[in-house]
Parts: sequence; structure tokens; C-alpha cells
Amino acid sequence: MRKNFLFTSIPHRLLRERLLTFLIEDVGMGDITTEALIPTDVKVEAQIVAREPLVAAGILESRLFLEMVGVEVVESVEEGAEVSAGEVIAEIRGEARAILTIERMLLNLLMRVSGIATATRRLVRKVEEAGLKVRVAATRKTAPGLRYFDKRAVMIGGGDPHRFRLDDAILIKDNHIAIVGDVGEAVRRARSAASFTKKVEVEVQTVEEAVRAAQAEADIIMLDNMKPEEVEKALEALKQRGLRDRVLVEVSGGINEGNLLQYAKLGPDIISIGALTHSVKSANISLEVTKTTPATAS
Amino acid sequence: MRKNFLFTSIPHRLLRERLLTFLIEDVGMGDITTEALIPTDVKVEAQIVAREPLVAAGILESRLFLEMVGVEVVESVEEGAEVSAGEVIAEIRGEARAILTIERMLLNLLMRVSGIATATRRLVRKVEEAGLKVRVAATRKTAPGLRYFDKRAVMIGGGDPHRFRLDDAILIKDNHIAIVGDVGEAVRRARSAASFTKKVEVEVQTVEEAVRAAQAEADIIMLDNMKPEEVEKALEALKQRGLRDRVLVEVSGGINEGNLLQYAKLGPDIISIGALTHSVKSANISLEVTKTTPATAS
Amino acid sequence: MRKNFLFTSIPHRLLRERLLTFLIEDVGMGDITTEALIPTDVKVEAQIVAREPLVAAGILESRLFLEMVGVEVVESVEEGAEVSAGEVIAEIRGEARAILTIERMLLNLLMRVSGIATATRRLVRKVEEAGLKVRVAATRKTAPGLRYFDKRAVMIGGGDPHRFRLDDAILIKDNHIAIVGDVGEAVRRARSAASFTKKVEVEVQTVEEAVRAAQAEADIIMLDNMKPEEVEKALEALKQRGLRDRVLVEVSGGINEGNLLQYAKLGPDIISIGALTHSVKSANISLEVTKTTPATAS
Amino acid sequence: MRKNFLFTSIPHRLLRERLLTFLIEDVGMGDITTEALIPTDVKVEAQIVAREPLVAAGILESRLFLEMVGVEVVESVEEGAEVSAGEVIAEIRGEARAILTIERMLLNLLMRVSGIATATRRLVRKVEEAGLKVRVAATRKTAPGLRYFDKRAVMIGGGDPHRFRLDDAILIKDNHIAIVGDVGEAVRRARSAASFTKKVEVEVQTVEEAVRAAQAEADIIMLDNMKPEEVEKALEALKQRGLRDRVLVEVSGGINEGNLLQYAKLGPDIISIGALTHSVKSANISLEVTKTTPATAS
Amino acid sequence: MRKNFLFTSIPHRLLRERLLTFLIEDVGMGDITTEALIPTDVKVEAQIVAREPLVAAGILESRLFLEMVGVEVVESVEEGAEVSAGEVIAEIRGEARAILTIERMLLNLLMRVSGIATATRRLVRKVEEAGLKVRVAATRKTAPGLRYFDKRAVMIGGGDPHRFRLDDAILIKDNHIAIVGDVGEAVRRARSAASFTKKVEVEVQTVEEAVRAAQAEADIIMLDNMKPEEVEKALEALKQRGLRDRVLVEVSGGINEGNLLQYAKLGPDIISIGALTHSVKSANISLEVTKTTPATAS
Amino acid sequence: MRKNFLFTSIPHRLLRERLLTFLIEDVGMGDITTEALIPTDVKVEAQIVAREPLVAAGILESRLFLEMVGVEVVESVEEGAEVSAGEVIAEIRGEARAILTIERMLLNLLMRVSGIATATRRLVRKVEEAGLKVRVAATRKTAPGLRYFDKRAVMIGGGDPHRFRLDDAILIKDNHIAIVGDVGEAVRRARSAASFTKKVEVEVQTVEEAVRAAQAEADIIMLDNMKPEEVEKALEALKQRGLRDRVLVEVSGGINEGNLLQYAKLGPDIISIGALTHSVKSANISLEVTKTTPATAS
Repeated sequence: MRKNFLFTSIPHRLLRERLLTFLIEDVGMGDITTEALIPTDVKVEAQIVAREPLVAAGILESRLFLEMVGVEVVESVEEGAEVSAGEVIAEIRGEARAILTIERMLLNLLMRVSGIATATRRLVRKVEEAGLKVRVAATRKTAPGLRYFDKRAVMIGGGDPHRFRLDDAILIKDNHIAIVGDVGEAVRRARSAASFTKKVEVEVQTVEEAVRAAQAEADIIMLDNMKPEEVEKALEALKQRGLRDRVLVEVSGGINEGNLLQYAKLGPDIISIGALTHSVKSANISLEVTKTTPATAS
Repeated sequence: MRKNFLFTSIPHRLLRERLLTFLIEDVGMGDITTEALIPTDVKVEAQIVAREPLVAAGILESRLFLEMVGVEVVESVEEGAEVSAGEVIAEIRGEARAILTIERMLLNLLMRVSGIATATRRLVRKVEEAGLKVRVAATRKTAPGLRYFDKRAVMIGGGDPHRFRLDDAILIKDNHIAIVGDVGEAVRRARSAASFTKKVEVEVQTVEEAVRAAQAEADIIMLDNMKPEEVEKALEALKQRGLRDRVLVEVSGGINEGNLLQYAKLGPDIISIGALTHSVKSANISLEVTKTTPATAS
Repeated sequence: MRKNFLFTSIPHRLLRERLLTFLIEDVGMGDITTEALIPTDVKVEAQIVAREPLVAAGILESRLFLEMVGVEVVESVEEGAEVSAGEVIAEIRGEARAILTIERMLLNLLMRVSGIATATRRLVRKVEEAGLKVRVAATRKTAPGLRYFDKRAVMIGGGDPHRFRLDDAILIKDNHIAIVGDVGEAVRRARSAASFTKKVEVEVQTVEEAVRAAQAEADIIMLDNMKPEEVEKALEALKQRGLRDRVLVEVSGGINEGNLLQYAKLGPDIISIGALTHSVKSANISLEVTKTTPATAS
Repeated sequence: MRKNFLFTSIPHRLLRERLLTFLIEDVGMGDITTEALIPTDVKVEAQIVAREPLVAAGILESRLFLEMVGVEVVESVEEGAEVSAGEVIAEIRGEARAILTIERMLLNLLMRVSGIATATRRLVRKVEEAGLKVRVAATRKTAPGLRYFDKRAVMIGGGDPHRFRLDDAILIKDNHIAIVGDVGEAVRRARSAASFTKKVEVEVQTVEEAVRAAQAEADIIMLDNMKPEEVEKALEALKQRGLRDRVLVEVSGGINEGNLLQYAKLGPDIISIGALTHSVKSANISLEVTKTTPATAS
Repeated sequence: MRKNFLFTSIPHRLLRERLLTFLIEDVGMGDITTEALIPTDVKVEAQIVAREPLVAAGILESRLFLEMVGVEVVESVEEGAEVSAGEVIAEIRGEARAILTIERMLLNLLMRVSGIATATRRLVRKVEEAGLKVRVAATRKTAPGLRYFDKRAVMIGGGDPHRFRLDDAILIKDNHIAIVGDVGEAVRRARSAASFTKKVEVEVQTVEEAVRAAQAEADIIMLDNMKPEEVEKALEALKQRGLRDRVLVEVSGGINEGNLLQYAKLGPDIISIGALTHSVKSANISLEVTKTTPATAS
Repeated sequence: MRKNFLFTSIPHRLLRERLLTFLIEDVGMGDITTEALIPTDVKVEAQIVAREPLVAAGILESRLFLEMVGVEVVESVEEGAEVSAGEVIAEIRGEARAILTIERMLLNLLMRVSGIATATRRLVRKVEEAGLKVRVAATRKTAPGLRYFDKRAVMIGGGDPHRFRLDDAILIKDNHIAIVGDVGEAVRRARSAASFTKKVEVEVQTVEEAVRAAQAEADIIMLDNMKPEEVEKALEALKQRGLRDRVLVEVSGGINEGNLLQYAKLGPDIISIGALTHSVKSANISLEVTKTTPATAS
């Protein structure tokens, strides 16, 4: 699996602010149950446990978050570790009040990002195990407000994050071409108007368009919603014209775990899958209190 | 289906701020592709189209959002409408640049909340069609930062939102009881410390605990992770002691579309399902440009 | 006095942000007087002193705030302690510049919340000393932006905070009933539309309305702006119909220290008083420098 | 009464943001009562009515706020108008849902600022009616987060706002002098270090200090916590040395409605009173629905 | 001059927020001079006038800003227009209070961005007039907090904005290479770890490094702080090895108006200049009131 | 050089927030180059070096910023130190990833504020070396959003910051006088409406206006855009009427390093210069890695 960068240089203070916002959303004026029932001097040790096989993500964020609320992370697996059902992801220790108050929000985050990382890893492995070199990539179909977390989870899973935002790279879509009137002209305009630091990608619907986009010197061609046989024709057409090595080819639309290899075997450079982030199945993770001091706090 | 309140009184300015934040997250410094290719005077008409049968949610937010960026909503279905594949959810009209720039973020939101509403509606209908009176409820297992949107989508689907936050109502869980040492004492402490405006719910693992919680005058008993036969015993035990009418009974844990009716038939008041919001399958929705003026903008 | 929860689980980072905002409001670009006059190496010890008998509130916030600006809290009384005139609330130590710069903002907060706690405690004690079981509650009539602080001060004083926000619990008022047309129908609609986790309270103006609200199975009846004799009749009417034990009865409107016991003796469950937070008399507190090092910094 | 500037040039967008924050604090996820009971098509007319004689303040903010939430202000009194009990402060018209949702927050603001303006006006009038020329001023003892609103209310009442923040003007206090060691040196340092655009005020405790501060060419002398006879001596001492016309004299500490004229007759330039903003008695104002369309919305 | 995209698709609401923040920074609690002197009913017409030849930038922002504060823009030149000394950039009309209050902040913005656009245009024209095809680019050396405005001004001047942020494109610098130990390895790692949507640029100090970076298939080579003769050698070395057409060559470091053509004539693709944004000479622009109604407002 | 206060009492937490915002602006989702290339265990030592003679400013902010991101400041010069070309401003030590990620933003800030301090110091020295007592002051012509930093840099350079905001002091300009109709009336209105804590400054265009403003008892007279001979006449006219000692005289408009002494010799109290902050030449500063551990991190 290709080693991805993991945004660990992102300023931690900023992350803490985001995590705090998530906590406030859940806490409001206070955890009135815990306040009412739990004495301030009760300490607990607890484990964050995988309830199914999964790829652990959100380890960095969990650490930052737990330290922020005064909970110690005694030990944890590494970001991206593959853990089996029942395995401990992290052991933590701190005031019972703090741990009970933040439990839900912490799990909500961990379960989502681990869910994304797990699904991504499964697809990446599938491609690798077939001996193929295709990158599995995400799209901009992330949950509103969670792009950083969703993209990072994809990377932890071994996937390519694709564009972070609309200002990252040029991606000329069908609607753009329809309005401009010609794919070649569209690429030229993009090259002229955008900074030289940006790549130019073009989304195409037909083999012919793919060829014209490559001839217009796009950096990347996205074959959109094509059946495997069309993808095959497009790749062949590029090869015949000596264009295949001058562009990266991304295949996108309607690809899932079932048909992934069918596409991957055709030899595109990238396969991108929106469902990686738009239809997330949360990984099943729970927090178990393992020790309370004093034992009963009545 | 019970008619739910829909948060339509929430201050729209606040919603616009949230939506703007989501847009910025996707746009960054600008949609450099659209800037480079699309003249400022091109207008388009477009349709937001369901690509599969779904319950439309996010209609209010879409209107606020589109108007905020200067796009006119010509017509749209009602919040919560059941639309079939191919049906138009909304017709919009405005500058090509604006519509192309906001397309992805708009769809990301619509697809998520319609996905939640659709799944919720399916379960609510299932219960209704079986002639049962059980409420289908969500949990606090929402995506970080999206609680308002996720809870609202549940309500649009016909579900009960359950607690908005930790400060809404008392919910005494196993860890709380373990530390306090006794369920009766826990309820008493909660009643004494919390405002008289709060209900007190107790999560129980056994039939005996359920009875003791009801005897301690909890308002709501949550039967947690019980098999149908245990739920049946718990309900029976409450009835025998004349406690059934004094409490609401919520069943939670491991319930899904497959076993929903099995539980619902036992006669609890509420069935709550975390997956409604933690494992969302986005509804398939797309934006189609139907008319461009002038036709070609080269 | 009933022991109240005190929001100590609220994330401290959030509190610090709020306190920082308050400081900035007062400081602007800098404390130009202190900058101009006080060398950076001068240290002081100081005392925060009660200038009249009071209930100390805001101790937690003061600690967080002072530590945030690098001032050490050597010792302080407990949240909610009853201190007499001249008594030291806290001893602090740090850079002269820091202490002189934050003095006013710190006192502004301490004086307000201690003022609220003091007034609340006086009323709570009055009821207790008369051997009565009525809760003294606040309302939503808090200073804009200060709800958390005002509600917490009420709780420190021994009072019930009542609703935190409009989304906490249903409270059906005269205008709601007037529009719906019938109190019973209003309660039914509320029960159907709101989550099962919410209590339903009804504000009534007459004995008859009180009875109808109770019959409609409201959880709480608020007798609004009634004279003591009307309150008495309402309670009697509920009793005669066997409804008294099924509802909580709150009395509100025009109640003050003078007539509090007159109402309390009638046996309602709660007496709520807007003036606790809308007309606050600040407690008199000052900050005295007790030691300067070096003694003179010329 | 001297005509004060009223901050009407403050950017209205900023004010709206602040007001929105106040609303959110009260509304949370939504006004669940109003949502549940009031159909979306019900319109109401309502009056904001003074329940006691008062000086109306917050008129500008109310307009901005009401327009922001789509409520029309049909008519209102002018900022600072003296209204009698029962008099209408404003007539408004709009959706029942909107008006019921914002009622409390609107009144919380109006009642506080009108309370401040009313108390200030009473003192200002008292001085004027005695034929005296002394300014009544506030202090920095405002509620945390509400400085703008509190200071503006003082101005609407006819008072002087005094310093907005610590960076407005130099005010050398006893602790500053104690550390510097000499009042003359303190004034010199302040003059040298601060911008030429700032006035220099000195708080003094004795007649002798007052004289030395004036000799050091302070712009303003604050006689702090002095009895009337001490104030008299201080003013006399300044006159004898020909210093009285070169400084403004402010009297502060322990002054209230009872002893105001006693001090004012001595001829200081300014009398400042912390209680104007730190111990506010809210003005009694209510919102009355006068017409509902349709009449009953069942 | 190449036509650049101008970020006109950036959400205007966001821009307004930024502009409002700038205004608040200048206004504080209010424009106390204008409040004190100018009656609310005075209207003025005014002109924003160039006091020297300049390229007008910030026209879009000025419009948004002025409309936000209720001032009408009667007419204005186009973004990027070249105006001569004395020429009117915009005519505006509105309340005297509003215009006097916002004057300084408006000019501060206009003068900075027009200064950047003017300097950029001068260099771009110089290259064009010499018949050369080199792009003039900015760097990340923008004023903190003003990147959007500074980059946009460069584009209005006809320059290339270069990277918006560190996440836009890979730029491998000397310190990166020193730590990795080899330029080829550095490029390979970057290609593997970063998304396929990113270009890879390498900053080199020597001709040899330039060749190795190109051989490692960098997309862009930055010749850093090289004298013209070194640049010439580097370009020649690339050509000889058939690498020149496979990379873009950027020259950077120590280039100014004086030596620009000397470098440009050598035929690099891009010349980047930090001073365009780090050492800005504000364009001289003033606001002149041309008509007051009523004429004198005493 | 007069010793200025340096805002060191400004709450550091607030500064950190501002600095973090600047960092985020530059970093976006992460420093993808550093992430891709630099192992997490590489440490570096580095120097921040002056590349030309300059007055170091921003030392406090740099410390706060570097500590915030986990980088140690081993040693640094004092705020305001005069350093020569090649001299080390600060030595720092920390993770290679952190230092490479924040380098540009740190330098952008340091270079701007040191540029302002350097230019200010040069002018202040010039006046001092001529044995004159005139203060060199800035104006409100600062970069949008950077007022705090720009004003502080002026003070570090030895200059007077002038007004921080529009609410600091009254400054009556030509447009104000034109609307009011008379300079004396304008001063009277200002005195009456503004707080007694504010100074009143008047900008005048003629000798006669200067005299009338002084007669109206303005605190400060600004001679705007006058030639040296006019300034001389104005000062003379004030002296002849015995008004010179009762006002401060500020000269402003068109003054630069070239003609500064010509004006200063005439004996005004203050000379203010907009270019100090509106046309900043950044000081040339670079960051040099001096040691890497381990030496090569391949």
C-alpha cells in the first residue's frame, strides 16, 4: 500500500478548536446526568474497543481531544492500524465526569473516520492483491463541514484524497464544456487563466472526447460513468495516438467493491469512488469502563 | 405518520452562516475552473433530480442557500415529499458561474439529509403499515458538527429526534449506575439535582433493573441491547406491577430494518436506532443543466 | 438546601474563550495606563475581598480566567460559600501588569454572579427556614449573552435553573393557547409533535384552565400572575379532581422577597422569579493589593 | 439635558450579528413549543408596552433585530423617549411563529437597556432641575459582553459614557501610584509613553494628592470615595492655587440618588456612578398580541 | 496581457464579512466625531479620485462594502482599469454619516490593492512590450491575513498568483532536499505521497540540480537566486538533455523592475517577485465630497 | 528616543488566535511538501537572520507563535533592537516539520513589522539628532486587519501611534466643518456630545482656521497639507494670540524623510506620516537551518 502523508503537520490548535466545537454541539450547558450523579473525585480507566475488524483512524484527533479535556491516553494503536473485533484501540484514564461527558462525541468521530478508512483500505488491498497499480481516490462528496476529517480518513485508508477544494486544480466538467462549446478551447482557456501551478483535468463522456482532451494537453482525463468496455476503448484510443503516457487517466462513476477489479484491470491510473465519503458505514467502536476508583461512589 | 415539527422557526440567518461555512470549505479562494471558462453573462436553468426513489429533505436549507448566492428557486417539492426516480426535486435559474460553483456542496447536503429522511421514513412506514403505534427515534450518534441537519432529517422522515444534547434530559446509563451503586439512588439524585423541567430516563440491561427503575419513578426506561424475548419479559414485569402506564419504554441496540417489526410488535413506546444517522447512505441526486443562455458562450 | 449540579463538566476551554472575549472588550489595544507606568518585573500579591455579606459565585471561572492570564490563585473559598463583609474570597499572586489589567473585568463578572447567587440563596433559605419544600426557580429573563453565567449563579445560590433554552421543554403560553383555541388540543399537539424526551408545561391564567391543562395530562402547570387566593383555589381544584399528584405546579409572576412565603405556604412545587436574573444587584467585591515586589518601582 | 451622540453610525451588520447571537442563545435548536402548536400561516399584530414609566432605549436595536427575523415595525417611539405606564413603545406585525420565538430575547434586551436609560435620566434630570451643570457619568462596571449596549443606554439616558475601554484614556489609580511611588512621576511617565491623543486622569484619595496631580498637569482629577466635605476642600485647594480651571474634576464612589445633589452642589465637573450599569433594575416591558389572523388557527 | 480570472465567483457574503471586520477594526464603538457633528439627514455625493496614474483594483470589494453600509455606487471604472491622475474611480452617494465613517477603511483597502495591481501591471507590460512570453508571478510573501486580497490584486494587474497556500502544489525547497539527501528521491517521495492532482515543483540552486530535478520528472523547476548567466546555463543544460519542454522553468530571487528584462530575455516560463506583495507602495487615492444636501447643516 | 509602551499587556491568548489565523491562511489542509518528505523524527536548529540593517520588531509575537507550534526560542534580541546585516535575530529549535511549515508565515509577519519599525526609527533618530523635540506619529492608514501589528511596530520604532480607532479621540476634518458650517461651532458640538475623557483635535487648511480652532479651545490643531512657510505662519499666529501653549500642533500631509527636518525645525509638537504604515518596505529577513538531526533523513 502506498504510504500517504497524513496531515500531521496541520496546526494542532486548529484541530482542537474544531473538536471543541463538536463537543459543545453535544454538551450544550453541561452533561446534566453526569453532574447530578458522579462525584468529582471518581476516577476511571477505560478502553476504546473495536467491535468489528476495522482500520483505526482518528487516533491523532482523539489524543488531542482527550488531552484537551484532561484525559490521559495511556496507550493506543497507530493511525491506520488494522485491528480485529474485540481489540483495544486505546486505553484512557481520567476523571469519570470528563470521560462520561465526552464519550459519545469521541465515538461519533472515531466511528465515522474509521469507517471511511476501513472501506478505503479494503478497496486498496483488493487492487494491490490483484497485483495492480491503480490508485483508489475519493471525491469532493464529503459530509458538509467534515472535509478535513473525511479526506484524512481516506488517506489513512491508503487512498488518494483527490482535490481538497475547487481552487486546488482545474477540473473541466461536461457543463463547462457545453458552455464553452469545445473541449480543446476549454483546456486552452484554463491553461491561460489559471496559475501555472495547477494541473488541468477534463471529465469526458466519450472516447472521442477523451482523445481530444489529451490532444489539447490536459494533464488528467476523467472517464466519467463509462462501462468497462468503453474505458477499454478510450485507453486503447489514447495508446494508438501515443497520448497514453502524456496523461493520467481517472475512471469515475458507478464503481464499487463489486466491479472495482473489472475496471482496475483495464489499467487506468486512478479509480475514484464517491461512496467512500458520501455513504459511510460507521465502524463499530465502544468505550468500556474497566476500573473505577473508588469502586462505588455512593 | 405523525406530523413532526420541522425547526422552521430556527433563525434563517444562522442557517445561512452554516451553509456559507460549508460552501467556503469547498470553494477556497474560488472555483478556478468556472472562473477560467465561463463568461459572467451566461445564465442557466437547471433541475435537481432524484436518481432513485427518496424522501426529499433539505428543501428549506437549499432555498436559503441558493437565494443567498443569487440563484432563484423556480419551484420545488415540499420538505418530506416522496419522489420517484427521475422526478424533479427543484428547478433553479441563475448565473452559470454561481450554479456551477455551488453544485457540489448543495448536492452533498441534499444527498445526506435526504438519505437520512428516506431511511427513517421507510422504518416509520413499516411500523405504521403493521398497524403499530411505536415511535422510531434517532440517537445522539450524528456526524460531528451536523446534529441540527441530521436530527431535522430524522424528523422530516417522520422519526423522533430524541435528545438534542446532553443537557436536554437526564439519561442514566450503565456506567452512571455502576458508579452510584444503585439504580434507585441514581434516579433520586437526578431528580434532586436537575431542573424540574427535565425528564429522567434510565438505561437498563435486565428485567429486574427495568422494574427497579420504574419503581424509582423514572419517566422513561430504555431496554438496552435486549433480545425480543427479554423485552417481552420486561414489559410483562412492568405490567404485572402496575408500572407500565407510568413509564415510557424505549427499546434500543441492534435494531434494524430486518428485526424492527419483531420488536415493535411487543409494544414498546419507542424504538431508537443509531444507524439512522451514524451510517447514512446518501440519496442519489444530481443537478442537470437544462438550458443555457446564450446557447454557446465561446 | 438542595445540592445542585454546577456545570463543572462544561468544557473549560469554552469557558476560557468566553472569558477572553470579555477581557478583550475591556482592554482593546492594551491597558495603556499600566503599560506606561508599571515595569514588567513588578510582582504583587492581592486579595479579592467581600465588601458585604454575600454568596461567592464565579470561583471556577475566576480560577480559569486568572490562570489563563498567568496569575496564580493561592487560595479561594468554595463555589457557593457564604462569606461575610471583609472576608477574603481569594488570594492571588502574579505580575502587577497582568493583575491591574484584568482587575475590572474580573470584578465585573464576580460581582454580577455573586449578586445573583446571594439573592437566590436568601430566598431559598427563607423557604427552607419556614420548613417548606418549594423550589425557587429562575426564568429565561437573563442578560443577553450571559445565560450560562446567570443560570449557573442561580444554581450556586440553590435555585432551580428552569429551561435553559426554548428547545429544552414545551411551555405553552397564553398566546399559544389563544391561537390554538383550546388548552387540551394544545397539549395534544405538543405531545404529538415534540420528542418523547420533553416535558410539557402549560401556563394558565384561571383555575378552570389549570384543571383543563391537568386533565389534558400536562406535566407541569404554571399559575401565572395569580393572587395567593387564586393559587389556593387552583391547588384545591386540582386536589379535588385527583389531579394534584399527577402534575407539578409552578407559581410565577409578581413574586418577591416580601410575598414569597405567602405563596410558598400554599404548597406549589416551584416558585419562579424573573428578577433573580433580570434585576441583579451586584455584590460588592474589591481587589486589594497587599504586597508589591519590589516595594517601589520608580 | 445635553444631547449625546448615540452610536447610530455603528455598522448595523455588526449589531445584527450580536443580536443574532443573543437569539441563538435562547432558541437553541428551535422554539419547539411554537413549532408544535402554531401553523405557519398565522399572522399577528402585537404591541410592546411599558408597564411602568420609563425611558425607552434599544429602539434602534429592536428595529434591526425585528427586521432581521422578518417582523415589521409599524411604529415606535424615538430612542430615549419618556413613556408612561401602559404606553405603547412599538407596534409590530408579522408571522406568529417568528414573534413568539423572539419575544423573550427582545424583551430581555429592551428591559435591561431601558432600565439603565431610565435610571440615568432620573439622575441627570435631578441635577438639571437643581440648576447644576455637572455631568452624570457611567464607569467600566458594565455586564461582561454588554459594554456597547450598557454604555449606549447611559448615553440615551443623558449620561456621559466615560472610558469605553482601557485603551481610551490614561486613568492612573492608587495601585499605579503606589508602585510608581509618586503621583507627579506617574503623570510624567504617562504623558511620555502614551499617545498625545490621550487625556490623563488621576484618581486621588486626599486633598494633597489632588493638588499634586493638578500641578503635574493631569487633565482630569478623580476624587475617589471622598465625603462631601473632603470634596469641598479639594475643590477649594485647587481654586486657591489657580488650578481649578486647568483640570476637570470627577467625583466617584458611593454616590447614589440620595446623595447626588449634595455632591453636585459642590461644583465638580463630573459625577460617576458604577451602579448605573452594575446594578440594573430592568424596566418592566411586555409584548401583547393584539390581533391574530386567522382568529383561531385550530 | 493575458486575461486572468478574478475570483468573482467567491461568495460575496464571505467577502462582506471580511470587509466588515476591517471596518470594525477602525470604528470601534462608533465614529464619535461624525456622531457628534453631522445630523442624520445630511446626504452627500462624493468621488473616489486617483491622485496619480494607477491600475484600479478592489472595485468589486468597494461595491460590496459600500452597498453593505447603505452607500450607493453611482458609477465606477472596471476592475483593472488604468486611470490617470485626477481621474474619478467611482462616484458614490449616501448619508454623510456613513460615508465619513467608512472613508478611511475604504481608502486603506483600495490604496493597497491598487498599489499591488499597479506595480504588477507595470512589470507585465514591460515584458509584453519587449515581445516576451514570460509570466510575472507573485509569491506567498503576502501581508498576514490579506492573502486573498493581495493575490487577487496581482491577478488584476495581470500577474500569476502562484500557490494560494501550502496545500496547493508541492514545492520542494533546499531545506527539504538537504534533509531527504537527494533531489531525485525527494521528487519520488512527493509523487508517491501527494495526490495525483498536485504538480511537483523543485527549487534548485545549481545548474546540476536543475538537470537532476528535471530528470526526476518534476513538473516545474525554480531557479532560485541565480544570476542571469547561471539561469542561461541552466536553461541551456535542460535543452541539451531534451528536458526543456518537459518542465516549466521559474526564475526567482532578487528580480526587480531594473533587471526584469535581463532575466525575461533568457526565456524562462515564469519570473516570480516577492516584493509585489511584501513591499507595497500604496496607490494615492482620495475621497472628495462634491455635494452636500442640505448645503450647511448647522 | 522616547520610550514607548509596547502593548505587552495585551492578552497573549488573543494574539495567539490572530497568529493562528494567519498560519491557517497559509497552510490550508497541510504543508503537503513537508508531509511527503520529512520524517516526523527529524529535528533542526535554525537562525532567523537579518539580511540588511533593521530594527527588530515582532519579537514578542514570534515567541508566542513559535511556542504555540512547539518550537523553542533559544535566544533572541530584544524588541526594538537595532541589528546589522547578517546578525541573528533569534535562534530556534524544534521539529523539522513544524519549522518548515511555519517559516513563510513567520517571516511575512516579522518582515512587515520590522520594516515599519525600521522606517519609523530612522525618522525619529533624524529628529533627535537634530536636537528637536517633535514626535513622529503614524496615522490610521494601516493595512486592513493589521492595525494592532502596524501601530505596535510604529511604537517599537519610537513613534507615536496616534488614534487607534475612530472612537479614541475627536478629530474634526474639513468635511465635518463644511457640513457644520463653522469651526467654532464644530468644536463646541464635539465637546458637548463626546465624553469628557476624549481630546478634541481639529484639522485645518489655513492659518485663520488654525487660530479659530485654537480660540474654540480645541486640544490639538492639525495643520493639513501646508507648506513649511504656511506652518510657520500658523505657529506664529498662534503665538501672537497667546494660544500656542494651550494647544498641541500636529503637522500632516506630504511629509517624508526628505523634508522632515524642514518641518520639524519650525517647532510643531507632532509630525504624522501615513506612509509609515501604508507603504511599507519589508525588512529583509531569512530563516536558515543550521543543524539537522539526524543529518540526513532518507
